Amino acid sequence: MALGNTYESQNCSAARALEVVGERWSLLIVRDALFRGTTRFSDFQRTLGLARNVLAARLEGFVEAGLMTRHLPEDSAYHEYLLTPKGLDLKPVVIALTGWGDRWAASNGPPIIYRHDHCGGEIELQLVCGDCGEEPAVDQIGVTPGPGFAVAD
Amino acid sequence: MALGNTYESQNCSAARALEVVGERWSLLIVRDALFRGTTRFSDFQRTLGLARNVLAARLEGFVEAGLMTRHLPEDSAYHEYLLTPKGLDLKPVVIALTGWGDRWAASNGPPIIYRHDHCGGEIELQLVCGDCGEEPAVDQIGVTPGPGFAVAD
Repeated sequence: MALGNTYESQNCSAARALEVVGERWSLLIVRDALFRGTTRFSDFQRTLGLARNVLAARLEGFVEAGLMTRHLPEDSAYHEYLLTPKGLDLKPVVIALTGWGDRWAASNGPPIIYRHDHCGGEIELQLVCGDCGEEPAVDQIGVTPGPGFAVAD
Repeated sequence: MALGNTYESQNCSAARALEVVGERWSLLIVRDALFRGTTRFSDFQRTLGLARNVLAARLEGFVEAGLMTRHLPEDSAYHEYLLTPKGLDLKPVVIALTGWGDRWAASNGPPIIYRHDHCGGEIELQLVCGDCGEEPAVDQIGVTPGPGFAVAD
């Protein structure tokens, strides 16, 4: 079961994202689809080692939410779960989480490194100011209301 | 209660991060601390509207994990929860989630906009190749084992 409307009081795009991928295991399932190319139920189950009913619920939720499509290849007895563009677009989220874990919880160095397929270079996540081009420190980033802002608190 | 070792089979920095901030509400509490400057229990409780026992467990977990410190200001009867550098460093994670929600779930446009304090410019999250300087499309990013890679599957 997905979080659904748990966060509906929050007029916040991060809350919207977490309603889709905020359940336990969700982002690790997405990670395997994104970076291991995992497509089959049994392969997700094997590498993650989570309960089958939980995995089934997560995959079903992803199909409902439009992150994945489920289809049966002609030459196979097994369904495949394939990421849609909406699902593929979660890559920056997984990369941001990985970066934090690398900096704060990887005593032996990063377990994996994200690379540019084309040249093999290491991928860096940067927060850049669209006006001045600086990369501000995290304590130099604030917020203002955008066009979708409506709820006062 | 934090996720603790739920993901211990996963030699993955994203899993390490989710053990700390993967519980329901965790990243929204962090968001309020990061971008609303929320520090007091009652203020988190008011804006998030979640159960007090859940909020108490999350904040306690954050203190244990070193994301926040808890202290009692001299002139106050209320404890403050203040983000440490480790907690502040979750900003890119919240910004990445927000970006996804803005692109896929914000029918009226972004509710909030991240800005550079210094010049007011809009902050952009970019994935950049450290070698060639390109910003690869998400389907052009792969992985290779890093120095902390150990577990075969």
